[in-house]
Order: sequence, then structure tokens, then C-alpha cells
Amino acid sequence: MKIKNPFFKKNSNIYLSDIYKTLGLKKPKKDLKINDISDLKSSSYNDISFYNNSNYFELLKKSKVKYVISNEKYFKSIKNYCHPLLVKNVLKSVYEIINLFYPEALNDAIDFNLTGPDKKNNKITFGKNVLFGKNIKIGNNTIIGHNTIIESNVMIGSNCIIGNNVLIKNTIVGKNVRIMDGAIIGKKGFGFFPDKKINARYPHIGMVIIKDNAEIGCNNTIDRGSISNTVIGKNTFIDNQVHIAHNVNIGDNCIITGQVGFAGSSKIGDNVSIGGQAGISGHLIIGNNVQIGGGSGVIKNIPDNVKVMGYPAKDIRSFIKDNK
Amino acid sequence: MKIKNPFFKKNSNIYLSDIYKTLGLKKPKKDLKINDISDLKSSSYNDISFYNNSNYFELLKKSKVKYVISNEKYFKSIKNYCHPLLVKNVLKSVYEIINLFYPEALNDAIDFNLTGPDKKNNKITFGKNVLFGKNIKIGNNTIIGHNTIIESNVMIGSNCIIGNNVLIKNTIVGKNVRIMDGAIIGKKGFGFFPDKKINARYPHIGMVIIKDNAEIGCNNTIDRGSISNTVIGKNTFIDNQVHIAHNVNIGDNCIITGQVGFAGSSKIGDNVSIGGQAGISGHLIIGNNVQIGGGSGVIKNIPDNVKVMGYPAKDIRSFIKDNK
Amino acid sequence: MKIKNPFFKKNSNIYLSDIYKTLGLKKPKKDLKINDISDLKSSSYNDISFYNNSNYFELLKKSKVKYVISNEKYFKSIKNYCHPLLVKNVLKSVYEIINLFYPEALNDAIDFNLTGPDKKNNKITFGKNVLFGKNIKIGNNTIIGHNTIIESNVMIGSNCIIGNNVLIKNTIVGKNVRIMDGAIIGKKGFGFFPDKKINARYPHIGMVIIKDNAEIGCNNTIDRGSISNTVIGKNTFIDNQVHIAHNVNIGDNCIITGQVGFAGSSKIGDNVSIGGQAGISGHLIIGNNVQIGGGSGVIKNIPDNVKVMGYPAKDIRSFIKDNK
Repeated sequence: MKIKNPFFKKNSNIYLSDIYKTLGLKKPKKDLKINDISDLKSSSYNDISFYNNSNYFELLKKSKVKYVISNEKYFKSIKNYCHPLLVKNVLKSVYEIINLFYPEALNDAIDFNLTGPDKKNNKITFGKNVLFGKNIKIGNNTIIGHNTIIESNVMIGSNCIIGNNVLIKNTIVGKNVRIMDGAIIGKKGFGFFPDKKINARYPHIGMVIIKDNAEIGCNNTIDRGSISNTVIGKNTFIDNQVHIAHNVNIGDNCIITGQVGFAGSSKIGDNVSIGGQAGISGHLIIGNNVQIGGGSGVIKNIPDNVKVMGYPAKDIRSFIKDNK
Repeated sequence: MKIKNPFFKKNSNIYLSDIYKTLGLKKPKKDLKINDISDLKSSSYNDISFYNNSNYFELLKKSKVKYVISNEKYFKSIKNYCHPLLVKNVLKSVYEIINLFYPEALNDAIDFNLTGPDKKNNKITFGKNVLFGKNIKIGNNTIIGHNTIIESNVMIGSNCIIGNNVLIKNTIVGKNVRIMDGAIIGKKGFGFFPDKKINARYPHIGMVIIKDNAEIGCNNTIDRGSISNTVIGKNTFIDNQVHIAHNVNIGDNCIITGQVGFAGSSKIGDNVSIGGQAGISGHLIIGNNVQIGGGSGVIKNIPDNVKVMGYPAKDIRSFIKDNK
Repeated sequence: MKIKNPFFKKNSNIYLSDIYKTLGLKKPKKDLKINDISDLKSSSYNDISFYNNSNYFELLKKSKVKYVISNEKYFKSIKNYCHPLLVKNVLKSVYEIINLFYPEALNDAIDFNLTGPDKKNNKITFGKNVLFGKNIKIGNNTIIGHNTIIESNVMIGSNCIIGNNVLIKNTIVGKNVRIMDGAIIGKKGFGFFPDKKINARYPHIGMVIIKDNAEIGCNNTIDRGSISNTVIGKNTFIDNQVHIAHNVNIGDNCIITGQVGFAGSSKIGDNVSIGGQAGISGHLIIGNNVQIGGGSGVIKNIPDNVKVMGYPAKDIRSFIKDNK
């Protein structure tokens, strides 16, 4: 299910021919309107998507999307499942198409529409110096601490506790969620095209989604997704000083201890526990019921029901044996 | 010596029969008033305590406490030293008894009693947008930076420097202490009972105690204790982005470098130095004059006067030999 | 080139005889005015510098400085290149001489000269509750987020984006720089003389210099230098929760991922990429085009064009081989 993103204004008048032109391709035989750019998982028939990593082959096979930006290397393997648009640098082309759909998405640093909250709303309680953007929705019995900033279009469910000095942007928060003091949620991710003169900043049109009953610790930084969303599952509890990069997807009932770091785009299952200071590399798949020891460095996928520890992380019995 | 905790209102009318009833035990033979729930170290004769880890056996033997929540597994070893109250899940029972003594302790997220400081007090200096709770005590010549929040009942000694954007709650600060910008001190610890539907949050009735001449770095997070206190010793200096979990006890004259993390309940001796990014697991005892190299992962107790490095941390000579 | 430091008021009337007296040395044969205390790299003929580590021998040979604080151990090797002033504890003596030149440098915790920005300046845009010190220079088209504090004498170039809740002191920022929410830049470093009674705090008279087109992530802490400056090179991008200690010098076009930590005084080349949670020890020299894997602990110098990983970090081929 794709949740509608209220944060970025889309140009809804983009045709396949506009995309071909932007990518430097010859005109398409037949023109048609394209709805959006999105990842393979959430793409519909009339979207455009991209393919740049064979880990996503199963997703491609299941995807309904027709037009897929890719390159020569993958042409043979994907041509039966979609209509590939071949380019030299897939990510750079994706960036150009995002700019086509979302021309204002880079201009997101500061929300200058903030004012004090509406003091007549007596169903939410808020502290001193709170700043609210436009078009915010907050559920009943939610309380919001001092000096906290909720930017425009953010949605927060009922019975939440948002701490002091919290900053929330581009985020949808469920019910009964607790976000601790100093957390920064929904900032754009650390994605850009390195260039010796001036790195090209990448627009991030994804959101952060925090599901019901979750708890987010102090001074956490949870970046929003580039095209997909960053997701924190139901009843998942996260300790202080954790960093979660863009597009990370964490399942339900996880326990994530202090100073853990997630590089971008990894998918963590349900009931996963991660000890303090562990690091999870990018684009990994961690199964359900996995236990990762404190200080571990995880650089490979982990199947369900496994306990690992070490740097690089390995089965805990090997770790113990090797360190006797 | 037990410092009186001014932060949580105690129900002072709890009898042994109330405790037995809450734990689902048969009525006690003789009823009597119970003063408080506390850890083995600080328990008095008329308190109730708990025993759930054989590391604490020596403490139990020395403790004056009579009534101790424990389970079948420990019964034989402790029955000569106390009157055990046997339950299935010790921590869950402790949580129930804390709730009995401190029914409001969970409701601690935001202090809505804040106002600007009393500008007539010319013995302390404070910046812009400072917020003070009720019943705060601050010593002479202390200065407090901009946007800082000092919640109700906090005590701060004389000649302290509290930086900008600092948040202090449930904390007692000594004299000549410096707390740097962005530090968050006294938040409840990351303790709860995992449950597949909704994790049960654990009340944290401990404090943070920061002793004279200590220095706390920028963006530190120092959580308060669950039942015991989190303690930072005299003249101990802590660098930026350090995380100190609940119940950790750090001795005097320690030097703790940037991004170090402490899991809960460890006890660190005096004159200990810890290099950057090292991690200390929970419930450990680290001796005096210990040196822990940067990046180490400490998962075992360390005796006095030892230098360690590595993950897992080992004697530094072994580390150097193994990594030649 | 030495950039003039506008942050600390220098006593410009210090003679060699004052320095000899402070260090407990006999009177110099000939007295003369000394301009400043600085590191070997930026010292001029009429400055005083210090030598305490043979890694800096090449710098000493090239330096124009004449008077150098050092100790007996280095006398033979340096006497042909300068006039050594021999003391017992070099760093303690340096501290005394800094105090001589900069008597107010320790008194830097809070800037109480802050007020709201000048609302008539329509070439910069700023959010709510912004606080500005005295004598700030900010370039055109720069925008500044809510609750941000810019202390006195800070200079920021044009076309910069400074986020929300940012704190900047003792810093010079170039053009087109982006500083994300919650970053704390320019605080004094973690340098002091340990003492069992009260540690002696060390004055930090350096700055932070952030060059054009750089990006600094959320909740970063970048400490200013003690005598030299902390420098972030052109077009260098830094992710969230990175800690950069005093005197670190990072080159141009570097990419530094989340939760990386730098101990003091290391020099990082150009085009260096560092993976998440890696740690770099103090006083190291890392070459150009170096790649450091996530989670690595770097404890030795690294030459140009090398890829390393591991703790301790080694050539990546050895790391992969050892961990098969």
C-alpha cells in the first residue's frame, strides 16, 4: 500500500516524451501521461521506476511498472519484465526525473511558515515556544514539549508524547508513539552525486513513517527516504543517539539500543534486537527474530532466527569460539 | 549514604500485606509498614529489595534488607540472608511494587510547570529563553546558557556553567560542574517489558547525581536510574556525544572520550580513562586505574590497573601481539 | 596563510622576558617583543611555538619560528633549527604562555551579548527565536533556521543554509555551506591537564574554519582548535552525529558518513571517504584518495590511494582474506 505523500508538490503533467527528452533518449513511439517516479515495490503501471542492483530482481518480476530506468548491463535480464530506458548513470537519471516531477523538492531546508500553535485547541497540550507549520494534524490527548518544532503537513496520531527540542518534518506518526527530547526526524538523507567542484544534492521526496506504539530515543536522527520511505514498525523501541539513514525499513517489535547506526536502504525484520553501538551496512536484509550483539558490524544479510556478533558479524557461537 | 530523592512522590502508606497481595502471595504472618523499594546496596531494614543476578550475592550478604523479591532458582542460596518473596518474573514484580510506591512515576515526560527564571535573583546569570520548573535550587555564581530547560526540583551547586540548549531533569548537580551545550540529563532509561502488543514502560524513580568539578560534553545523554541512581564522580570529564544508560556509576577522576557508550548498571572505578567510541556492556565492574583503548568493546569485568583494547577487549599486550 | 582570529583578545605587549619568567627560566640575553603563540606550521619569526612529538620534525625544519618550547629529550635533534626553551612539561608550559597572551580565553562558555537579529537586513532570511551576538558578518541570500544561535564575531558567507537549533561560535564559514539542524560548532575541545583534585581546563584559542560548498550533518559536534584551527575542506560532506575533535584538518571533497569520530589533531587528505561509525585516532596523517570502511578503527597513518577496513584498520584485501 502506498501512503499518499503530503509533503512535496508534484507536477502532475509529465508525459513519457518529457522523460525521454530529459534522459536524452529518442522520442517514444506512443506518448502517454506518467503518474510518478517511485521504487519497484510501490510502482503502479503508469509510474516510472529504476533498476540498478540485481538484489531487486524478484521485486522487478512482481512489479506492475512498465517503464524502468536502467543501463546496458541489466538489459538482457530485465527486458522480459519491463520496458527498459537505458542510460549511462542510473542514479543521475533518476535524480533528473525526480526534479522533473518535484521541481521544488530541493528547496526544503527551513519551513518559514511556522507560528505558535492554536491555543484554542484544548485536546492537545503543548509547552513553551512550540512552533507549528501549516496544515498539521495532531490527534487528541497528544502532548508536545517545549521548544519543539512540527513543520508543515506533519501528521501525528492520538495519545502521543513528543518531547522537548524535537524537530519533526516530512513525517507521519501513528498513535501512542513517544518521541524523546532532541530527536530530529524527517531531514533529507545523506544522498548526493559527488563532484570535484560542487556535489549535486539529491532531492529526497520520501517520508518517515513511525507506526503505533513506537518509542524514539533522545537525539536520534531519522532521515526521510529518497524515493521510498523510512519506516519504523509498530511497538519498536529505539534508545538514545541512534542514527537511521534514508530508506531504512525497521519491522515491528524491535529493540534497538543506544548509538546503533543504520546505513541506507536496509530492511530489518520483526522482533529483531540490536545491542549498543552496532552498525548495519546499507542495502541488507535482516530476517525476523534476529539478535545482533552490541558493537557488531553487520555487512551481510542475516536469515531469520539467527544470533550474530562481531565485526564483521558472524554466528555468535563462532564469535565466542574465536575469542576464547 | 542514600540521598533523598525529591523528584517522585512516594506513597508512604504501604504495608507488607499490600506487597504480598500485589505479588499474588499469601498473606504475611505478621504485617508491618514498608518504607520504600530500593536496590540491595541502599536498602534499609524496613525496605523491600530484589535479587535476580548472582553477581550481587556479596551485596545481599552485606545488606540490611529483610524482604527480597526473587525466584525459585535463587531460593537456596539466599534464604539464610533474607526473607525471599518468590515470584515468577522478578523484574515484572519489581515494576508492580514500584507502581505501588510511586503511582505517578510513569507520567514524567514533560514538565508543564515551566516559566522564565526569577530575574530578581542576581546571584545567578542566565541567557535568553531559559525555562525553569518549580522548586529549583541553584547556587551562587552559576551561569545558565540560552534556551536551556531546568525542570522542577533540580538542584545545581555554585560556580557551575550550564551551556545552551541543555535539558536537565531529575538530577542533582554538585559545585563547579560544567555541562556543555545540548546535553540531555535525567531522562528515564531504556527499560521496559517487551510485549508483542504494547511494550510495558518501566517507571524510573532514580536520579542522576553529578559530583563536584565534573564536566559533561555536548549532546551527551545521561539517563536516570530505574531504582538506583546514575552517578558521575568528582572531577570526571566526559567528551561529546557520550551515552550513559540508567544506573551506571562512574568513579572520580575519570576521562571519557567522545562517542563512548555505557549500557545499563555498570560500575566504573576511579581514575579510569576510556578512548573514543569504546562501548561498555551492562552490569560490569571495571576497576580503578583501568585504561580502555578507543573503539574497544568491553564485555567482561576488568580488575584494577589493567590496560585493555579490542573487541572483545583484552589485555593490550595481547591485542598488539594479535594484530602485528 | 594564517587567517586572523577575531575571537580572542590578545595581549599584544608580551616580551621574551615575560615568557622566560613565566616558564621559570633565567632572563634571556636580549629581550624582544613576541607577537603570538602558534603551532609550527603557522608560526612567524617573532612568534613562540612548541615541539613535543617527533612526528612534527619536518615541520620544525621548515618553520620560520625561532623560540620553541620543548624538553631535554628533543634538545639534540632540534637545537640546530631553533632556540629551544627547555621545560619539564611542554603542554603545561604552552598552557601558561597561552594564558599570558590570552588572559580571557578560558572565560568563553556563554555569550551573554545575544539579541534578536536586525530585522531590517533583508538580504538574509531568518526563522523564529534566532539569537545573534555582536559583530557578526553574514553574506547575502543566507538563510538561518529557528532557535539557532550565532555567537559574537562569527562570519558566514553568502548562499549558506544554517538549519534549526544550530549553535555556532568561534567559526568562519565559507560560501554555499549547509549546516544541518542541531549541529554544535566551535565549542572548545576536550583538552585539559588531569589533576586528582581539579583538572586544569586548557584555553582553546583556535577557530573552526568551514570552507565553501561543505555540508555539515545533524547533531554534529565540531570542536575548535586549541592553538591551530579545526578545518573542514571545500565541498566536503559530513553526515549526522559525527564528532570532530580539536585541531582536526579535513581536506577537500571528502565524504564522511554517520557517527564517524575523529580524535584530535589528525590530518585527513582530499577525496577521502569514511564509512559509518569509523573512528580515527589522534595525530594521524591520512593521505589523499583513501577509503576507510564502515566501523573501522584507524590507529596508524595511511598513505595515498589505499583502501582500509577493520579494527585495527588494515588493507581491505587482508581484511577480506582474514574474515573469510
